[in-house]
Amino acid sequence: MTTRQVELFCVPMRGPGDMSGLQRLIDAGALDPRDIVAILGKTEGNGGVNDFTREYASKSFALTLAPHLGCTPQAVESRIALVMSGGTEGVLSPHANIFVRRNVATDGRKGGSQRLAIGVARTRELLPEELGRAAQIHETAAAVRRAMNDAQIADAADVHFVQVKCPLLTAERVEAALARGRPPVTDDSYASMAYSRAASALGVAVALGEVDATVPDSAVLSDWSLFSRVASTSAGVELNSSAVVVMGNAQAAAGDLVIGHAVMRDAIDLRAVLDAFASVGVGHSSVGADMGARVVNVFAKAEASPDGLIRGTRHTMLDDSDITPTRHARAAVGGLIAGALGSASVYVSGGAEHQGPPGGGPIAVVARCVDALAHPF
Amino acid sequence: MTTRQVELFCVPMRGPGDMSGLQRLIDAGALDPRDIVAILGKTEGNGGVNDFTREYASKSFALTLAPHLGCTPQAVESRIALVMSGGTEGVLSPHANIFVRRNVATDGRKGGSQRLAIGVARTRELLPEELGRAAQIHETAAAVRRAMNDAQIADAADVHFVQVKCPLLTAERVEAALARGRPPVTDDSYASMAYSRAASALGVAVALGEVDATVPDSAVLSDWSLFSRVASTSAGVELNSSAVVVMGNAQAAAGDLVIGHAVMRDAIDLRAVLDAFASVGVGHSSVGADMGARVVNVFAKAEASPDGLIRGTRHTMLDDSDITPTRHARAAVGGLIAGALGSASVYVSGGAEHQGPPGGGPIAVVARCVDALAHPF
Amino acid sequence: MTTRQVELFCVPMRGPGDMSGLQRLIDAGALDPRDIVAILGKTEGNGGVNDFTREYASKSFALTLAPHLGCTPQAVESRIALVMSGGTEGVLSPHANIFVRRNVATDGRKGGSQRLAIGVARTRELLPEELGRAAQIHETAAAVRRAMNDAQIADAADVHFVQVKCPLLTAERVEAALARGRPPVTDDSYASMAYSRAASALGVAVALGEVDATVPDSAVLSDWSLFSRVASTSAGVELNSSAVVVMGNAQAAAGDLVIGHAVMRDAIDLRAVLDAFASVGVGHSSVGADMGARVVNVFAKAEASPDGLIRGTRHTMLDDSDITPTRHARAAVGGLIAGALGSASVYVSGGAEHQGPPGGGPIAVVARCVDALAHPF
Amino acid sequence: MTTRQVELFCVPMRGPGDMSGLQRLIDAGALDPRDIVAILGKTEGNGGVNDFTREYASKSFALTLAPHLGCTPQAVESRIALVMSGGTEGVLSPHANIFVRRNVATDGRKGGSQRLAIGVARTRELLPEELGRAAQIHETAAAVRRAMNDAQIADAADVHFVQVKCPLLTAERVEAALARGRPPVTDDSYASMAYSRAASALGVAVALGEVDATVPDSAVLSDWSLFSRVASTSAGVELNSSAVVVMGNAQAAAGDLVIGHAVMRDAIDLRAVLDAFASVGVGHSSVGADMGARVVNVFAKAEASPDGLIRGTRHTMLDDSDITPTRHARAAVGGLIAGALGSASVYVSGGAEHQGPPGGGPIAVVARCVDALAHPF
Repeated sequence: MTTRQVELFCVPMRGPGDMSGLQRLIDAGALDPRDIVAILGKTEGNGGVNDFTREYASKSFALTLAPHLGCTPQAVESRIALVMSGGTEGVLSPHANIFVRRNVATDGRKGGSQRLAIGVARTRELLPEELGRAAQIHETAAAVRRAMNDAQIADAADVHFVQVKCPLLTAERVEAALARGRPPVTDDSYASMAYSRAASALGVAVALGEVDATVPDSAVLSDWSLFSRVASTSAGVELNSSAVVVMGNAQAAAGDLVIGHAVMRDAIDLRAVLDAFASVGVGHSSVGADMGARVVNVFAKAEASPDGLIRGTRHTMLDDSDITPTRHARAAVGGLIAGALGSASVYVSGGAEHQGPPGGGPIAVVARCVDALAHPF
Repeated sequence: MTTRQVELFCVPMRGPGDMSGLQRLIDAGALDPRDIVAILGKTEGNGGVNDFTREYASKSFALTLAPHLGCTPQAVESRIALVMSGGTEGVLSPHANIFVRRNVATDGRKGGSQRLAIGVARTRELLPEELGRAAQIHETAAAVRRAMNDAQIADAADVHFVQVKCPLLTAERVEAALARGRPPVTDDSYASMAYSRAASALGVAVALGEVDATVPDSAVLSDWSLFSRVASTSAGVELNSSAVVVMGNAQAAAGDLVIGHAVMRDAIDLRAVLDAFASVGVGHSSVGADMGARVVNVFAKAEASPDGLIRGTRHTMLDDSDITPTRHARAAVGGLIAGALGSASVYVSGGAEHQGPPGGGPIAVVARCVDALAHPF
Repeated sequence: MTTRQVELFCVPMRGPGDMSGLQRLIDAGALDPRDIVAILGKTEGNGGVNDFTREYASKSFALTLAPHLGCTPQAVESRIALVMSGGTEGVLSPHANIFVRRNVATDGRKGGSQRLAIGVARTRELLPEELGRAAQIHETAAAVRRAMNDAQIADAADVHFVQVKCPLLTAERVEAALARGRPPVTDDSYASMAYSRAASALGVAVALGEVDATVPDSAVLSDWSLFSRVASTSAGVELNSSAVVVMGNAQAAAGDLVIGHAVMRDAIDLRAVLDAFASVGVGHSSVGADMGARVVNVFAKAEASPDGLIRGTRHTMLDDSDITPTRHARAAVGGLIAGALGSASVYVSGGAEHQGPPGGGPIAVVARCVDALAHPF
Repeated sequence: MTTRQVELFCVPMRGPGDMSGLQRLIDAGALDPRDIVAILGKTEGNGGVNDFTREYASKSFALTLAPHLGCTPQAVESRIALVMSGGTEGVLSPHANIFVRRNVATDGRKGGSQRLAIGVARTRELLPEELGRAAQIHETAAAVRRAMNDAQIADAADVHFVQVKCPLLTAERVEAALARGRPPVTDDSYASMAYSRAASALGVAVALGEVDATVPDSAVLSDWSLFSRVASTSAGVELNSSAVVVMGNAQAAAGDLVIGHAVMRDAIDLRAVLDAFASVGVGHSSVGADMGARVVNVFAKAEASPDGLIRGTRHTMLDDSDITPTRHARAAVGGLIAGALGSASVYVSGGAEHQGPPGGGPIAVVARCVDALAHPF
């Protein structure tokens, strides 16, 4: 009898084209490239419109894996969810999270505890004028449901993190849409990233029943009471459809990893960070110490609160014309989470519109089970 | 019989020219402008060479206080230490810390406990070619000793934070020095900020006996084993001499405030942040909760570790040509400290060369005494 | 019999608070502070939302002039049009253009030639929700007509440059408007600068008969066929009403200065730059040579073409998340004009929405008359 | 009998990974990939330390050409000089200049006129501690001589542009050198780019007899009287040795292209721009008009003058902590040259240390001969 088991490898990157971490894992036989289902990378660009480190890293991963998968690099990009989130401001360290899913033989007596499961799906290509609107919401929701199915997770309550990589509008794409008589939701590229992230997050929320499916276009970037507690969406110039990665715990899954999450209510919510650790059994007494033996990685979203305030004091992230708000937010939240974890190699992505409450965002932790440590599965 | 008592007022600023917080305190009679000894402000510029928010805020404070002190704005700037630290990246909130020192009548039975004391001094004008070299170190050290004297602190162990505001080199100042045949230590303005901060910090260390007075020029920005555990230095284009503010606890001082400190060994050292709180009696259980009733403010330094690593993982702060390392570091450390304190109105200054170990920095906390809360002095 | 005569003094600034240029003119008796009608400054900030160099320079000018005008600094700001345009990217040199208007005795035989005239006016305070909409257009148009009257210019064809300094939306102002149930046109501060500049420019166009007064809200930042050929508008955080400065030639004016203009059709339109010089009698053969004896200064607007193209080739200004498009555009157009003039002390302002054709902008030149040089008035 | 002929194809790039321009040329048979000797690209990164668009574009070109050359991508990078210069600030348009050198049959009566010739060479790998010092100067000089030989140019007077792509220091490379006890010339990455460009330029000057071969280390970035009139050097993180491309006119060369150059004495030297055009027979009357039929492209260097002045007025490029001086300079000089040429697709590279006089830089123009137009070769 076989069961599916998910492994997570977190490798440092010396640059967006540095594939040595992945290569070493392959060379050492630590993973079989054909088992890779998703790679979530933090690359060291500005995370904005002209951040080509995402595209460069994606292409590099595809190029490296193609010979192992016996297909073209283009085919790799459609088989594996390559989600690069740009921006390693402050202490954040460029790295890649490689998710491997493989079948393992079990003795049929796999106990009652759930383990980390992962599933992926992809939307069709989205037109420029669909971004930030209902079409993107519903295409994303459908993809989330397909990814849950792929992960063998039936209950939305078992989903702890949904990463979506979605397109953005460049000046070129805006012009193309206008030429077809289909004005996009904005003609500002940087602003389009927020729209795309927002609609994607609402799509996750719809799929998980957090928000009603009838959510109107006008709610996007406007009705902040609507949000998903587990969505993490990031926009990139390098793709025209959205890739969806669902992570959760499943009865059907084996392995020694589990995932849990909490929701930061604002950018300085250390309590929520500690709650996220607690959700996978890592106690407060470990805070700031080296949790390396237990925690594999943390996945979180960060944003500048849209009302310009954090617990009543003014922040300047929205009014800074030198540094974009997403860069500010990643730096600050990255500093907080890295401090709590005791490691700077964490996945913090910027722009949390409709991902957690305004100014806050989801935080998920993938850890090894205590019992797994004591009694490896 | 009278004793000196220090009060600290922390007021938000809506911009570098917003004096409404100070004005309200004056109008309400909460403080007497003549008792102000120092104002440490966080202003919302880039914290770099061309950050004019520091100069603008300094001039605004001087202009506001001049009529109350019966002197010119220029005279205010020499009577009161106006130390503006630019840069409120991430969650950091622009604000001013107004230190007031006044004589209060005591019944002569002031008990054994030390309370917050503050003293100020100023170096002579420093020539461009003196920055980053022995002259600056020794002028700073002498000023620190005068400021300790002014604070009535005799023992270096009672000093918990020494803020120095020092000059930097602009292209104009470099040219002037070259024209006199006196090449400055660097001709790069942004780099000169680091040299000036470094020499100032070594000056503090010399004054407090942390570093031998024979420290050579070559140690500046080079021998990272030499540092002060309490120095906080920041450079600004708006002054040609250095202003020194010494904070510590003194037997001679009254009031209900105390100060303590710890040293962050790196930018993610949450344990040190907690130790700093503990040094003034604020326990770990309060972390992330609202400490407003106890903690008045936190003063800390942040920097990108010069070896490019944080606990073995690479950071990208030194190689980013879009955002200066000091901006990155303030954002990250500001996020961490704000998270631990539960407030974003904290004083985090960038560039911690020879201020704490490389990559780390001092963190001081000013808090109300527990007994003071129960039995106000 | 007396006639009005306009003088233009162009003084360098070593920083936004450097008033030494103005002070020297006052000390030398070169101008009477009471005759100053407008100061157009280029300050060295980012020209964006958080550019406090504009506010700092404005306040410094007001503070310097107040004792000479026998009024408060606040009163100076309402008596004199203080228009600071932030951003001296590339070669642009920070400086102030001080316009002085005085009565001079004439012999009654002032000939037929027109000379430089200037007039100023101000709108009422504009509410956040009025920016970028009809209210701002019409208030601006009315102010332009008042300023023309003040300049004694009756014919719109004699107007060669209209500078408007208009408000922008900060996160705070947006929140205030939302709290009153009046959603502003955008909640993005940087985007609000474009809206405010656009509506101001359309206001100028309406006043001058270039655009029909019935222009709808929806044309703002959308119908690029509507524009003024002489409007130059810039937004700043430091004011809540708009200041309008009209420059043109008037029969009633004396002096030896004249103004002319041309319209750049795109950001690399060197021909239009040469045409602007030619409009005041400065020939092509002088290009790139020192025109200091003839040309007093050049006033121009620059912008990134909204379609992302310049003569068919793609530019990257709109897709750069590190540098705002206005900074890019000022740098490029500033380089071109400075090259043609042979001096970097030119007034180039960014963001030319509805100011000239899309991607282009007006360029005006103030020069000494040839006959004036030969036979001083 | 055969002669060598150089063609220059200038293709736009929609991003650093956009190879469609090259692909179209190959598909159309316009060039044989095996004849490509050099590709000089302008990519749309920040041109600084962390500009990965250069590396990404280089790898993309290598990947595209490898199958045509029957070798690995790595081998392509050593066979063809791939010189990517980051930074398309202002109007500059991302594009690639593809230099093709092929043998053509001639009738043996090729006349007396010189035509464009090109040669390439490469230094050995340079150690971190060699950058900015004599070793780099002399290795570069030797490579320039080899490249001249390759171009069949014997006389230094026939060399009109020498492009060098040289390494820089990252935090990692600095640490590696320090670990070996070999301190590099600076530990600041951005500063190392200037050192590397400077030493490379002096190497060119030595090879061409413009500077004496005994130039000491101390002259680098210091003795501005030493410079090459034709060197263009740019640093990039993507290589450890220097690639050298020599362009000039040679008797031995056929084709219808010629090259000429001038030297800009400062960043606003429009006269020199016009002289450069004149050097290849394009008259002043064409200025700003479409020169597309004659001029293939312009290659120039730009920098912020190290004394902070341009013709006596202050610039702010060196004191801006938000935008690096090289970005400012490219934007301004790019605007000037694009205006003169009437096209924004020009190659302007930043950082002109020892390349032309301080604040200025070389400008070369490749054009079609008039006689070639009339009587194609």
